[in-house]
Amino acid sequence: MSTWGNILRISIFGESHGVGIGVVIDGLPAGRRIDFDAVSVQMSRRAPGQNSAVTPRKEPDIPKVLSGLKASVTTGAPLACVIENTSARSVDYADIANTPRPSHADYAARERFGDTCDMRGGGHFSGRLTAPLTFAGAVCRQILAEYGVRIGAHLYSVGGAADAPFDPVNLSPALLDALSQKHFSVIDPSAGTAIRECIDTARQSGDSVGGIIETAAVNVKAGLGSPMFEGVENVLASILFGIPGVKGVEFGAGFGICGMNGSQANDAFILDESNNITTTTNHSGGIQGGISNGMPIIVRAAFKPTPSIALPQKTVDLDTHQETTIQIRGRHDPCIAVRAVPVVEAALAVGLLELYLRG
Amino acid sequence: MSTWGNILRISIFGESHGVGIGVVIDGLPAGRRIDFDAVSVQMSRRAPGQNSAVTPRKEPDIPKVLSGLKASVTTGAPLACVIENTSARSVDYADIANTPRPSHADYAARERFGDTCDMRGGGHFSGRLTAPLTFAGAVCRQILAEYGVRIGAHLYSVGGAADAPFDPVNLSPALLDALSQKHFSVIDPSAGTAIRECIDTARQSGDSVGGIIETAAVNVKAGLGSPMFEGVENVLASILFGIPGVKGVEFGAGFGICGMNGSQANDAFILDESNNITTTTNHSGGIQGGISNGMPIIVRAAFKPTPSIALPQKTVDLDTHQETTIQIRGRHDPCIAVRAVPVVEAALAVGLLELYLRG
Amino acid sequence: MSTWGNILRISIFGESHGVGIGVVIDGLPAGRRIDFDAVSVQMSRRAPGQNSAVTPRKEPDIPKVLSGLKASVTTGAPLACVIENTSARSVDYADIANTPRPSHADYAARERFGDTCDMRGGGHFSGRLTAPLTFAGAVCRQILAEYGVRIGAHLYSVGGAADAPFDPVNLSPALLDALSQKHFSVIDPSAGTAIRECIDTARQSGDSVGGIIETAAVNVKAGLGSPMFEGVENVLASILFGIPGVKGVEFGAGFGICGMNGSQANDAFILDESNNITTTTNHSGGIQGGISNGMPIIVRAAFKPTPSIALPQKTVDLDTHQETTIQIRGRHDPCIAVRAVPVVEAALAVGLLELYLRG
Amino acid sequence: MSTWGNILRISIFGESHGVGIGVVIDGLPAGRRIDFDAVSVQMSRRAPGQNSAVTPRKEPDIPKVLSGLKASVTTGAPLACVIENTSARSVDYADIANTPRPSHADYAARERFGDTCDMRGGGHFSGRLTAPLTFAGAVCRQILAEYGVRIGAHLYSVGGAADAPFDPVNLSPALLDALSQKHFSVIDPSAGTAIRECIDTARQSGDSVGGIIETAAVNVKAGLGSPMFEGVENVLASILFGIPGVKGVEFGAGFGICGMNGSQANDAFILDESNNITTTTNHSGGIQGGISNGMPIIVRAAFKPTPSIALPQKTVDLDTHQETTIQIRGRHDPCIAVRAVPVVEAALAVGLLELYLRG
Repeated sequence: MSTWGNILRISIFGESHGVGIGVVIDGLPAGRRIDFDAVSVQMSRRAPGQNSAVTPRKEPDIPKVLSGLKASVTTGAPLACVIENTSARSVDYADIANTPRPSHADYAARERFGDTCDMRGGGHFSGRLTAPLTFAGAVCRQILAEYGVRIGAHLYSVGGAADAPFDPVNLSPALLDALSQKHFSVIDPSAGTAIRECIDTARQSGDSVGGIIETAAVNVKAGLGSPMFEGVENVLASILFGIPGVKGVEFGAGFGICGMNGSQANDAFILDESNNITTTTNHSGGIQGGISNGMPIIVRAAFKPTPSIALPQKTVDLDTHQETTIQIRGRHDPCIAVRAVPVVEAALAVGLLELYLRG
Repeated sequence: MSTWGNILRISIFGESHGVGIGVVIDGLPAGRRIDFDAVSVQMSRRAPGQNSAVTPRKEPDIPKVLSGLKASVTTGAPLACVIENTSARSVDYADIANTPRPSHADYAARERFGDTCDMRGGGHFSGRLTAPLTFAGAVCRQILAEYGVRIGAHLYSVGGAADAPFDPVNLSPALLDALSQKHFSVIDPSAGTAIRECIDTARQSGDSVGGIIETAAVNVKAGLGSPMFEGVENVLASILFGIPGVKGVEFGAGFGICGMNGSQANDAFILDESNNITTTTNHSGGIQGGISNGMPIIVRAAFKPTPSIALPQKTVDLDTHQETTIQIRGRHDPCIAVRAVPVVEAALAVGLLELYLRG
Repeated sequence: MSTWGNILRISIFGESHGVGIGVVIDGLPAGRRIDFDAVSVQMSRRAPGQNSAVTPRKEPDIPKVLSGLKASVTTGAPLACVIENTSARSVDYADIANTPRPSHADYAARERFGDTCDMRGGGHFSGRLTAPLTFAGAVCRQILAEYGVRIGAHLYSVGGAADAPFDPVNLSPALLDALSQKHFSVIDPSAGTAIRECIDTARQSGDSVGGIIETAAVNVKAGLGSPMFEGVENVLASILFGIPGVKGVEFGAGFGICGMNGSQANDAFILDESNNITTTTNHSGGIQGGISNGMPIIVRAAFKPTPSIALPQKTVDLDTHQETTIQIRGRHDPCIAVRAVPVVEAALAVGLLELYLRG
Repeated sequence: MSTWGNILRISIFGESHGVGIGVVIDGLPAGRRIDFDAVSVQMSRRAPGQNSAVTPRKEPDIPKVLSGLKASVTTGAPLACVIENTSARSVDYADIANTPRPSHADYAARERFGDTCDMRGGGHFSGRLTAPLTFAGAVCRQILAEYGVRIGAHLYSVGGAADAPFDPVNLSPALLDALSQKHFSVIDPSAGTAIRECIDTARQSGDSVGGIIETAAVNVKAGLGSPMFEGVENVLASILFGIPGVKGVEFGAGFGICGMNGSQANDAFILDESNNITTTTNHSGGIQGGISNGMPIIVRAAFKPTPSIALPQKTVDLDTHQETTIQIRGRHDPCIAVRAVPVVEAALAVGLLELYLRG
């Protein structure tokens, strides 16, 4: 289902090559002014064609709001937004109907929905469906900002190239603000160069490459989340895994914590210079027992390489039940992680606002 | 909240040092015979005191079923089970009330619930609450077995010691069956020795160590799960992060997929010797576009080191607002991952049955 | 929230005087052909301007489908539909902002959402929001028809005038089919005349009148619904009370059952001429213990009189905090029940399909 | 499903003749002291054997709290309660297995769950399952009382005998408090006599009689509930229809509003003597557009006559597929509405607390 949330609910619809895509956001608090220039910045970060690391297809991705606002202020009614599809070229995908693309949703979706599912351009599974999620996040982060929460993300690593990681204890809101405006989001410029080279190498060989996005939120109040199944981790993971291509989600030290001893991993409580309670380290990623402890929320999501590559690949023709080879045409991002940075921020924003609204 | 699920719903209750803990399972299909000897095996795998790698406290963990069964057959009514607490020794925890233990839920829970929350022995956040989840999983896996699904898990790694990983393509149901009976679940006996040594070293130094559990299900039908927010990954992650201590969840190649090119990572479709569609590799972990593709479901969960360690640790006294040092008494598992193996299997079983029942 | 359902989820958006209204339907089974001529019939039954009993405003209510269909067949992806608002005349409502209309949502909504809620024409509370629900029902009833289910409704009573009631035991699918095409749905033509007169009388005096709609579904399989909180009655009531103006919902003999003895009210089981189990009476309305028993589902919903009347009414000016008198301009249906007939059928269709899909 | 709620979740379990029944309440706010003497009053009002109008079977119904409290104060963890079954006499029900009792859940449940469902004494469909709901309500009403909310209910009518109705505008908290302590809840003593006679007459003839319960809450803040599907009416109806035997739910003037003109039915806004906004009438039952307006919430629920009557009744033997006659043994309340009064109050309390917690 393309519906998410409890107190704040989003319902995403659309297909890559249909009439339009969009989202209904129900449960937004009333009386909040939304800055649509700020929304446009996020839409544009996600849109294709921004730089050589991404696909050159042009999709303006202008969201048209149908309801839920009066003079740019939320009314409490559902906020619905539609983005028209303008550049659909279904001819690019004509030959994939019966030859499922490796590591795409084609085969699994057909098993789930039968022959009638529409997989042109990925259909409802397309990365294009992250546009409405980005829109929802761009709205939610503005409401979170009223609580002081700042959100940002960067390319933690791509292939073998790594950016400087977040400082999980002293993470600056200004850094997050800066990252959240970038079209190619890295902290360390030289790492950015290495990452671009890594992506270029993949593209030039008709291949693609995976990446890890690290995202964080600061000034998140302590006491968000509930024990067991509705902790901050459960809630955020359930939305993050909704972004196409995510194969792993970790918090704080994440998988790396397994190699630590408790004496290393435990985040000791101390008083900071303002005499507030803080922790010396933040291997917990700001979450203990599923509940926020006031430290920065640190999350990483692993993105697989773009499954659409130019190189020939083996598959099975579902009509003839014979093995065959396909070559995927069209231009695709060699690394989906690049444009997924604002999407990950958006998912974090929607998830955190849901947690805030649960009270 | 300690409630999980949609068509199959579990509601877990209890505190470490209260009267009893348990679970209500609503939505189980009617007419399924439950083998309680098999349930007991799972309860005993999770129970403490099994071997030197775990805490020597004795808790019989005998589940008493209150409803939902007639002559061991499910009736369609909610199945409720209570496990009485018999060995509560609250004196062990008398001094922790105002000095939150590092990387425990103590501090965050107090921010969430105020002074009245009961944190003796971890309260509702205690690892003991995994007993009712294990019970629920032990019931669900028997119903899944009727569809042919087999589930097992092992200690993928502990500290620096690693077990042999699952073969994600040719994963034998017999291996999973064998693992699902083990009290110390490893595939490679020599790896088991190394893991035990790693745990012993930590225990002897009053410390603890983290670990990764790898779990899998085979014979899962293709077509389970829904796009975006209710894919197999979203559903399983939302329950797995409900297990105390989990800081990361990954599927298939997981975080490792980020270092691959698409041409390596993509799982090509071929025909197997029975002329069925299969994939040459299984970096997708049996899930594409959120939907199962019939290959083994492969999931790994990262567990942090037991936060309760014997070594002195810094914390802040919440009454005096002064920095202080605590030393946690009582005997604790030096590696929670060991006894968490059946819990991870249980979470996978509950999650998969939910997905099967959604139809 | 304007979101409903569990396995089948609808998310309705829009305001009376906004850009557009619509609905996202998530969870529809794939591979079902939708006849849009049949959908149009339902949209037109609900649309205003059909006859003298309803408001003469013209709203074409042409639903534009954005996603979820391929050649009129459901794909399994969310089906989104938008209906543009074309006849908004906000001037009609300019003076109501600070003088809440009696028995409208104006005052309560302002308490809920503050000054920013948009109440022009009722805003998101407008009866116009039943158009997307009617659309959703028109889709769902076609899928239910594949299971043999037939749905219809009629004006059971308006003011003091009553139609012939349904025969709850021998209810003909043909009657339901006929009713479900009518713009003024009554069983007994002479009752129809009396009802029209009752409505005309109200309109001519600048007043309005209430009504009861009776709806039914036949060929509903036995065994739908779950005990306690997800019985057929709970599920249907939770959607029926979503239709503006509904103040009561009853099943079978409903409130009238309270005046009966058990020996009268109990529905005895017998064998019919085909040797199938049936009941001699159907005071249960086809539902026992929350679960369908195969007899016709009989539901009635009570609609209050249109609160917008031409007569002067007392209210309080929220700015000056003084008592005042308002007179509502614009043309309004004197009896909302008339156009609500297809909406009630739609709610029944959506509710029953949800129950069928829960399996 | 026997699970209800969103922010406040209850999960009810048990069968009439099983080991025990109970409820898990998840999402209760922490730090609220629960007076268990007050809880006992509610349990005792619902328990059988109180007077000649009810069944003489003795069931102590002593709730045992397993978790969620520390020194009678809520901790924020799930509050679980078990009530042991002590007077099970399954012999009374031995012969009903294959001859479904008219207007009981027997037949429908068998169609839903198959032969294995346990219908002894009604199984999970038994009126006895209202005991855990009463417990949950007794807890929730104490938390609501902190907001000033008072809840009470009375027998509005039984058969042809009617109590004095609530004054929907000037409803005294003291009256509700008094009613909420009564074992035979009526406002007018002479009406009480007539109701008792009506019930006695039914019992003496081996028959039963239906009834309507009217319940109300005062001091409910304006602005509770959401438009469309999560209005106060939707939420309350969805829990009220979970009480066995309820066939109708109405708010304010309810079905009677259909016979009114708008000029009669509309609740005009005026200023009261304290210069607060109030309404001259309260046909809306305190709810407009699904949202509370600060006036008393008025709800009525229609209960069918006890289906278990001593008179012989026709049914079909499901084994032989032959028509037959059964006579139900055992002692049953001749009017389930009498003991359902505290259950209806409980449902209202749980429903309103859920709405308050949604914020």
